[in-house]
Amino acid sequence: MVILDGKKISQKILDELKLEVATMKKKLRLAVIVVGPKSPSAIGQTTQKFIQQKQKAAQLIGVDFRIFPFEETVTTDELRKRIAQIVHEKKNTGVIIQLPLPEHLNVQYILNSVTPEKDVDMLSARSLGDLAVNKNRILPPVAGAIRAFFEEYEIDYKSKYIVVIGAGKLVGLPVSLWLLNEKTTFTVLRSTTPDLSEFTKKADIIISGVGKPKLITGDIIKEGAIIIDAGTSESEGKIAGDVDFESCSKRASYITPVPGGIGPMTVAILFKNLINLAKNQK
Amino acid sequence: MVILDGKKISQKILDELKLEVATMKKKLRLAVIVVGPKSPSAIGQTTQKFIQQKQKAAQLIGVDFRIFPFEETVTTDELRKRIAQIVHEKKNTGVIIQLPLPEHLNVQYILNSVTPEKDVDMLSARSLGDLAVNKNRILPPVAGAIRAFFEEYEIDYKSKYIVVIGAGKLVGLPVSLWLLNEKTTFTVLRSTTPDLSEFTKKADIIISGVGKPKLITGDIIKEGAIIIDAGTSESEGKIAGDVDFESCSKRASYITPVPGGIGPMTVAILFKNLINLAKNQK
Repeated sequence: MVILDGKKISQKILDELKLEVATMKKKLRLAVIVVGPKSPSAIGQTTQKFIQQKQKAAQLIGVDFRIFPFEETVTTDELRKRIAQIVHEKKNTGVIIQLPLPEHLNVQYILNSVTPEKDVDMLSARSLGDLAVNKNRILPPVAGAIRAFFEEYEIDYKSKYIVVIGAGKLVGLPVSLWLLNEKTTFTVLRSTTPDLSEFTKKADIIISGVGKPKLITGDIIKEGAIIIDAGTSESEGKIAGDVDFESCSKRASYITPVPGGIGPMTVAILFKNLINLAKNQK
Repeated sequence: MVILDGKKISQKILDELKLEVATMKKKLRLAVIVVGPKSPSAIGQTTQKFIQQKQKAAQLIGVDFRIFPFEETVTTDELRKRIAQIVHEKKNTGVIIQLPLPEHLNVQYILNSVTPEKDVDMLSARSLGDLAVNKNRILPPVAGAIRAFFEEYEIDYKSKYIVVIGAGKLVGLPVSLWLLNEKTTFTVLRSTTPDLSEFTKKADIIISGVGKPKLITGDIIKEGAIIIDAGTSESEGKIAGDVDFESCSKRASYITPVPGGIGPMTVAILFKNLINLAKNQK
């Protein structure tokens, strides 16, 4: 059993990106829209940690990291208008909106205000449309992270049977769109699926992004399966994935840990996306 | 076994649309971009038949049907420019591009020149992006056709296991995007899938859009399965689907014939889309 080492591989990617950034004439800046209470402790520990990880990676590779904070009471229209300005500003080579947003906001409408040229997270409808027709320059970070793992560990995923658990905005949906472009056979399981194990037991690769700790246990996976845990939830104050690592690692051939698996890889790919998009900006 | 009667149900839909069109102040017009040889017989029998079916439906419900013909030698840029003008014209409430296009053209780039407000076929990247984030006003015609069948025959598809065969632009891709928005469990099979029957034998519903006659035979479906044949190819001068009707109809609970199944339904939904989009235009 091999642990897919997100810490190590993301560091390797960031080291490469650092060299690339150094050769670029253009100064890169990631603009980060953060909506919420002023006190950072009130944002939520997990969210805070995610922002810090991105900031650290930015510093490491020499990219300017600029937080644009907004009051929790901001309206959808105000936020859209301000994001449009931030996107329009030449200095901001990429723009991301830190999720989750307060409940009163129209999340997708706000995400759509980032134009594809700067949409490093690929969460806007237009970026996803480009992906659907296979005309995307970059991949959604989670899909890019998974692909980078497959490449690094020389896992031939295209001929494998893949099971995706969940169809949410951050994992299941972008991963499914990516797999539609690859010539892979895949199944999407939902909260309504009567029995996950019927599918997971046959899967060569499982990609889970639900946010339910211990959803996937060793008894419902195939011997030798490849387990990608992209779930995120908090369990007893810690970040938890969807996979019961202990039981699954005994049967899997490859498995991602949480933390230290998909998380840091997604951050690295975010910056890879930033660089790739910046190259195409005037 | 029940035959899903596309002729009858599409006629019923068109009759309803006719009443609706009669109450609308705005005159509706479907603009149809046709690229190809001047002589209609050289366009290809199947394509010609498809155009005629749409024209007939338009006449029936009182919608203006205007073909915009282009020489086979037109360039991608010229065609894009002209389509943009056609889309911009207020009189054209919907615009479709008849496929297939000549091989030298950049098909997706051309399809993208139809803006979502007039994209009744939902083949542009922007329309598909709206669908991916579940912010679509209409459904891609083939998905709308399948849903209309399910509603008409009171088939509860949301709790069923669905197998989609193929991931092409016209069937597999739009159907998969639609299913991602529904809470269904589904599998996408490809030409690279080693053994289709492993999945088709378990499927409650099979939706096929490959273009390979007799790809699906009775021995690889489950007793009582619902078989939706959205494949299109020519076999011995006739339009053929992917399903071997004779053997499948003996085991299926519901099945679409070809012709007279998904085909006429797709045409009816195209006009339903036209009306729905027209209502939202100024």
